[in-house]
Amino acid sequence: MAPPALSPSIPPSPWEPAGRRAQQREVKRNAVLQTAAQLFNERGFHATSLDDIAERLNVSKPTLYYYVESKDQILLECVKTALDLMQAGIGEVRAAGGSAIDQLKACMRIYSGVVTQDFGMCVIRIGEDPLPDPLKKELRRLKAGIDGQFRRLIEDGVAEGSLAPCDPKMAAFMLAGALSWIGRWYRPDGELTPDQIADQGIDLLLNGVLHRPVAARRKPAAAKAKR
Amino acid sequence: MAPPALSPSIPPSPWEPAGRRAQQREVKRNAVLQTAAQLFNERGFHATSLDDIAERLNVSKPTLYYYVESKDQILLECVKTALDLMQAGIGEVRAAGGSAIDQLKACMRIYSGVVTQDFGMCVIRIGEDPLPDPLKKELRRLKAGIDGQFRRLIEDGVAEGSLAPCDPKMAAFMLAGALSWIGRWYRPDGELTPDQIADQGIDLLLNGVLHRPVAARRKPAAAKAKR
Repeated sequence: MAPPALSPSIPPSPWEPAGRRAQQREVKRNAVLQTAAQLFNERGFHATSLDDIAERLNVSKPTLYYYVESKDQILLECVKTALDLMQAGIGEVRAAGGSAIDQLKACMRIYSGVVTQDFGMCVIRIGEDPLPDPLKKELRRLKAGIDGQFRRLIEDGVAEGSLAPCDPKMAAFMLAGALSWIGRWYRPDGELTPDQIADQGIDLLLNGVLHRPVAARRKPAAAKAKR
Repeated sequence: MAPPALSPSIPPSPWEPAGRRAQQREVKRNAVLQTAAQLFNERGFHATSLDDIAERLNVSKPTLYYYVESKDQILLECVKTALDLMQAGIGEVRAAGGSAIDQLKACMRIYSGVVTQDFGMCVIRIGEDPLPDPLKKELRRLKAGIDGQFRRLIEDGVAEGSLAPCDPKMAAFMLAGALSWIGRWYRPDGELTPDQIADQGIDLLLNGVLHRPVAARRKPAAAKAKR
């Protein structure tokens, strides 16, 4: 049934309702940040201008300014979004509970996943160096929070016996370093998918690169006994 | 015996001999680079001006220009010096020969050592992002050379049986990542010396963070049998 036509002569407004406009603005704003992140990662932060970002989005620079204030602010938001994503993912893992080693593996996977995404790559490839001091401090605080979670998980892992005794601070830095570096060398068109990288990378960090002599010696000995 | 005084009446020149002047220029040039690297690492590249560098050296900016051309050129030289140092150290290890695992350990130690020095920290903390494209490419070529050496050592280690079978490219990236990250978090006034960091870091990467179950299970079993 059609609703009663109260004022059939009034044409529909060419403007979207306010709620929908706000939503569309957010979509467009995200597109600006995403495109900027891609350009920063491809060319570097310095080599990317607001004109480059506008050009790739087929808009004018003034249009860009409707969504963002400056290149610095774009970088801040890209890095912050990635760190928030990481923090939220780690928070979920922690809240779900389970053994420390399983939580650590899950958190390493989240870390590795984020740094293969546009915003996460910005954290690693550009970092906070171009930003003024107060913003640098804000980002460092977020990073320290993530680092703290890794340290606690490593402490818990040592306590539960799944991890070898170690300096949790040092171990957290080594894990975060190797995982962060993925954001430097990862290429979306490369041989390995983000999942394959996470699998192999986490395995290397958990088990080390050495051949385990005990397991290695067992097989040939068993083969000999059969002859 | 004193040499025969041929012209005792000519006063000594207030200028140093040319060879010594060149040497002193080199010493001063190095001081400029070192001070700049320290400031870049402390405050960031963007936040450091040539005026800051001149001020810390107690000289004027024009004096600085006698030794260096620009901030970009300083960064290039800092990063290049560190990468050359790494390459040379790795070259020496390779030339001396020995097992792949021993060479790999020695190269990891060199890598870790360089990134705890002022120039090496610049490689990790600042990188090539601020530099124009041709210079970026030059630095990337140097980095790729170092990465290639690590890959070959890992391949050799797998072949000799000291390293577990792995993707050498991936393993080289993980090792380099964890070791590079040291340059981000290392503080000269921190708890650990560069040597302690190298020891612990290399051990973690070789053996992994997991508690080795075989070795771990053996002890309680043996203890039980004794009862």
